[in-house]
Amino acid sequence: MRFFSDNAAAVSQPVLDALAAANSVDTAYDEDALSQRLGVAFSEIFETDVTALWVSTGTAANALALAALCPPHGAIICHEEAHIQNDECGAPEFYTHGAKLLLGTGDGAKLRLQEVQRITASIRDDVHQMQPHVLSITQASEYGMIYSADEVETLGDLCQSRGWGLHMDGARFANAIAHLDCAPADITWRAGVDILSFGCVKNGGMSAEAMILFGDAREKAAEIHYRRKRGGHLLSKGRYLAAQILAMLENDLWLTNARAANAGAKLIAEAAPDRLVYPVEANEVFIRLSADEAASLRAKGFDFYDWGVGEARLVMSWDQREEQIRPLAEAIAEL
Amino acid sequence: MRFFSDNAAAVSQPVLDALAAANSVDTAYDEDALSQRLGVAFSEIFETDVTALWVSTGTAANALALAALCPPHGAIICHEEAHIQNDECGAPEFYTHGAKLLLGTGDGAKLRLQEVQRITASIRDDVHQMQPHVLSITQASEYGMIYSADEVETLGDLCQSRGWGLHMDGARFANAIAHLDCAPADITWRAGVDILSFGCVKNGGMSAEAMILFGDAREKAAEIHYRRKRGGHLLSKGRYLAAQILAMLENDLWLTNARAANAGAKLIAEAAPDRLVYPVEANEVFIRLSADEAASLRAKGFDFYDWGVGEARLVMSWDQREEQIRPLAEAIAEL
Amino acid sequence: MRFFSDNAAAVSQPVLDALAAANSVDTAYDEDALSQRLGVAFSEIFETDVTALWVSTGTAANALALAALCPPHGAIICHEEAHIQNDECGAPEFYTHGAKLLLGTGDGAKLRLQEVQRITASIRDDVHQMQPHVLSITQASEYGMIYSADEVETLGDLCQSRGWGLHMDGARFANAIAHLDCAPADITWRAGVDILSFGCVKNGGMSAEAMILFGDAREKAAEIHYRRKRGGHLLSKGRYLAAQILAMLENDLWLTNARAANAGAKLIAEAAPDRLVYPVEANEVFIRLSADEAASLRAKGFDFYDWGVGEARLVMSWDQREEQIRPLAEAIAEL
Amino acid sequence: MRFFSDNAAAVSQPVLDALAAANSVDTAYDEDALSQRLGVAFSEIFETDVTALWVSTGTAANALALAALCPPHGAIICHEEAHIQNDECGAPEFYTHGAKLLLGTGDGAKLRLQEVQRITASIRDDVHQMQPHVLSITQASEYGMIYSADEVETLGDLCQSRGWGLHMDGARFANAIAHLDCAPADITWRAGVDILSFGCVKNGGMSAEAMILFGDAREKAAEIHYRRKRGGHLLSKGRYLAAQILAMLENDLWLTNARAANAGAKLIAEAAPDRLVYPVEANEVFIRLSADEAASLRAKGFDFYDWGVGEARLVMSWDQREEQIRPLAEAIAEL
Repeated sequence: MRFFSDNAAAVSQPVLDALAAANSVDTAYDEDALSQRLGVAFSEIFETDVTALWVSTGTAANALALAALCPPHGAIICHEEAHIQNDECGAPEFYTHGAKLLLGTGDGAKLRLQEVQRITASIRDDVHQMQPHVLSITQASEYGMIYSADEVETLGDLCQSRGWGLHMDGARFANAIAHLDCAPADITWRAGVDILSFGCVKNGGMSAEAMILFGDAREKAAEIHYRRKRGGHLLSKGRYLAAQILAMLENDLWLTNARAANAGAKLIAEAAPDRLVYPVEANEVFIRLSADEAASLRAKGFDFYDWGVGEARLVMSWDQREEQIRPLAEAIAEL
Repeated sequence: MRFFSDNAAAVSQPVLDALAAANSVDTAYDEDALSQRLGVAFSEIFETDVTALWVSTGTAANALALAALCPPHGAIICHEEAHIQNDECGAPEFYTHGAKLLLGTGDGAKLRLQEVQRITASIRDDVHQMQPHVLSITQASEYGMIYSADEVETLGDLCQSRGWGLHMDGARFANAIAHLDCAPADITWRAGVDILSFGCVKNGGMSAEAMILFGDAREKAAEIHYRRKRGGHLLSKGRYLAAQILAMLENDLWLTNARAANAGAKLIAEAAPDRLVYPVEANEVFIRLSADEAASLRAKGFDFYDWGVGEARLVMSWDQREEQIRPLAEAIAEL
Repeated sequence: MRFFSDNAAAVSQPVLDALAAANSVDTAYDEDALSQRLGVAFSEIFETDVTALWVSTGTAANALALAALCPPHGAIICHEEAHIQNDECGAPEFYTHGAKLLLGTGDGAKLRLQEVQRITASIRDDVHQMQPHVLSITQASEYGMIYSADEVETLGDLCQSRGWGLHMDGARFANAIAHLDCAPADITWRAGVDILSFGCVKNGGMSAEAMILFGDAREKAAEIHYRRKRGGHLLSKGRYLAAQILAMLENDLWLTNARAANAGAKLIAEAAPDRLVYPVEANEVFIRLSADEAASLRAKGFDFYDWGVGEARLVMSWDQREEQIRPLAEAIAEL
Repeated sequence: MRFFSDNAAAVSQPVLDALAAANSVDTAYDEDALSQRLGVAFSEIFETDVTALWVSTGTAANALALAALCPPHGAIICHEEAHIQNDECGAPEFYTHGAKLLLGTGDGAKLRLQEVQRITASIRDDVHQMQPHVLSITQASEYGMIYSADEVETLGDLCQSRGWGLHMDGARFANAIAHLDCAPADITWRAGVDILSFGCVKNGGMSAEAMILFGDAREKAAEIHYRRKRGGHLLSKGRYLAAQILAMLENDLWLTNARAANAGAKLIAEAAPDRLVYPVEANEVFIRLSADEAASLRAKGFDFYDWGVGEARLVMSWDQREEQIRPLAEAIAEL
């Protein structure tokens, strides 16, 4: 059984069904009926008027968002473990045309106010240094930890006072909402988020993510449409991306799937409370595991990534059922 | 009935079926079994070892190819009507980091040797001017005209003698092969093409195109993989793109679909031989049509684009059957 | 005697003297006393508050101006013979991060309203095409022709109505003013110019040009400072650039020099009225000249560029005295 | 007396004299006699055939060098205190089109082998991460410390084994040679350096720095010429830059000036051995200094930068004579 990444999971059946249902001629690009419905659908979920665009990857969503918020000569503050720093091969630098990522530290890949202030204080306000224009946080974080509404708001207030944009990489936004059980608005626009990368692919989608623009950031929509096109991300048959996203939203499939993945992670966490490197809040579990222990689990057919020395990362997917995960939980407990 | 663009057509059923068939967990990105098969599949079709990568759009395929062949301070020679010049919102400039497109003219959006030589002669060989590094041609052209193997080879020879790369935008490559009825190798690597953007989406695909690297250009594969990733074009569930492309290749679906579209265009051409602006070789028909005539056709339910003043563009899609097209042919004939 | 280009002329003695006079320690970059005086000095000349920055080259001034006025996904309308298109090796594309130059034609390398409107009309207002954001004109033009105040204003009005910026490449701005004998304000901000590249080097300077920001464009000053620095154009001993520019302005040296160069060109023009390809308004003369005639002039020690077939370009410099030019005039008259 | 930075010092008289001596017409750009002599002059100094180009700033030299050695999707390893990271407003990112700087630590702003290996080990060799292509070190470092020939060679060997380029930011290269009293070759090409930014401006120049290409890097000269032009750094009257550099080399003025500056720093160091934060090897002195002590020095007319809390930076310039520096040394000793 594979616990490498939710990235590799299968696609939810309603998403596949939606592709089949969309399979007739319609207007190209994003002027079809489905693409046009995205804004309405997300405005309902977020309880405010938002602008929503589809893109094919979370990397594209993040990079386009950052490019809209940061000039080429500006800087983006993020955690040193952030996906935008470590796993996008410079997509943020590419789309922003050379902005610099200023890196902070913090437990569980979360950025706290004090750390952001420390980074800010280290920047001289002169033309020789790239000035911060955006703060980017990941929800849930790369270590499966979740910012509370208050935590986001604290950072959002700082951004507002500084005139920075606030970007949220929500590749696992659904897992965060499933954990917090709060209104999506509470950890986004109400807390100061300008643009959200709303992840679908890790959560049962196939090839569609959504960018959500809140408040003033909606004025950037036209510019982002141009940037998306020149990034090669304006699919001619965009309705098949819109269809996927709408299927994820329909009947709260996005929450159902996320809850399932989170529950899987909880199973593991409960089986190995003393091994946890971070509290388990979403669908990722980081545990202390010696090389021998790792080998023993692998010998039993469980696949996962080592994470540095003496640790392992286990990611649960929306489609892994309890009876598939329990054997792993038991195997860990028995170590 | 819509004749706006093959871009908007539905997806071939085998492509949809392939998505369903691919729907189980596999390795992420392009290390899954299907993605790994692409090279073999295309090597058979092209009768030589090629490297093949999937991307989501033709714009991305074109821009990545040009970036691999042209430095930021270089120039790309293309037709002034080329898709890369007029319809990609600067994706070539974005991916190449600022290369310049040098524009030529030529009937039917085809570039001929003499015109390329004329452009070349206009460039001083000094550091003040951007020097040509790539020639890019579209097969079939933006006006549905097709380069013969000899025509491509003439340009390929020039490129070789100059040390330029030769890129072929093959958004409608299938339509060209269907028309020429030649080996795909004959109009690509045997004629000097380095990188081909192999189109699927206009021809029954959903969201997958292929980049094909021939000969020495294969050495650029590693670099292109990095560029693709930082462009946000490395989908985590890449197997669903590979599946689409493989389905297009299976049983020559790509040729079957292209032949159908070409046949549709031929129906119109035969109904209006005196109105043709260009010979009809692929699936696009450009006809002289007055405003009144256009209105009259639209009144009968036929939709299409005006093309400048007094002309119209009619594009046939793989899924438009003869009985759907014949009424348009007849309506034109009766004008 | 060399008539290749005013680019190669010597430096005016007052400029050299100013370097010596500036030679003591002062604050680095542009916070020295001389750099701080630039704005005041130019505000007087232009009869309005302007912001002025030094840079080392006209190419840098042009590219920085265009980058401030045009987003990466935008387009710049200019003449197909413009320096920014033909002689800057893609600096505009580099600094704008990939904007596209849309090229027009027009006698004497001047753009007229109708041509700009024609280009504009050819752009579809959709996301697939790069939309114009800036119009750039060269004053005097690359063929030594000059826009009247009315001509600039006509273009300025169009820019204003469209929301475009208007950039003036004034590498030979002094020659234009010397010819028109008008207030510098009349052909710049009063006529709608947003940013002027004010040339010094061709006119007796050594290594300093000025960027002049008018009106609303002054709000872009902070951004341009960052762009200048990251372009590597913020010299630490900037006072030696400011000193050059101030020396050019002192006692109207810039006009004195330009008048001398213009007068030189007039000498030639009067000697060969039937050979002129364009009216001679600034310091460049384009004449019809057969290969034999060119050879004969060169045999007499006159050096200059051929310009296409059967034409030659003769450029007069500020430091070429009448007695140096008259022999050329006579030699041409005798042909 | 100002001890802010050698950046702000005056210009050596022989440099000014050279400008006057160069003041006659010559071929534009870098095809004049002086520019053509640069390669020969530097080849002698470095005891091997080198290619040398002038540019206006060290930032431009560094950024052009990095762009020649690192693709847009690559990474550059440097010290977290490096000028290219902290003081160039993203010029490296701009010229490389988005490469990422990977930051290391190390006493005195020097990078050691182990730290470079640690950084390297943290990069996964896959397409999601930007792979190192260049190592950049500063000689003398930003804290005035100097790499010995052996230290450079150790890093050079690593670069060679990895296939990386090695760039040396030599803004204070002269100070390093003055300290080491070794052949310039020993700490450059013999130790594996590919491209050197050879500083002149801090050392008595006005507006000219040199890029020196060694060995295989010389094959990049053509490309760098294009990049320099499109960066707006090809001055039309380039001979005035070449003249400055040649004047610096003539009679070893560059070493004479650097020795003077180093000697000044030594004066301070000897007066305050217990306050030194780093050993004083070049012309920069970092001392522990309380706020009260700093105020007391300033009250006596000494100007300098605070450096973090409780430290100060004092930089000696080539033109500060012993009798000007000794009062500062004494004032510090008396604190």
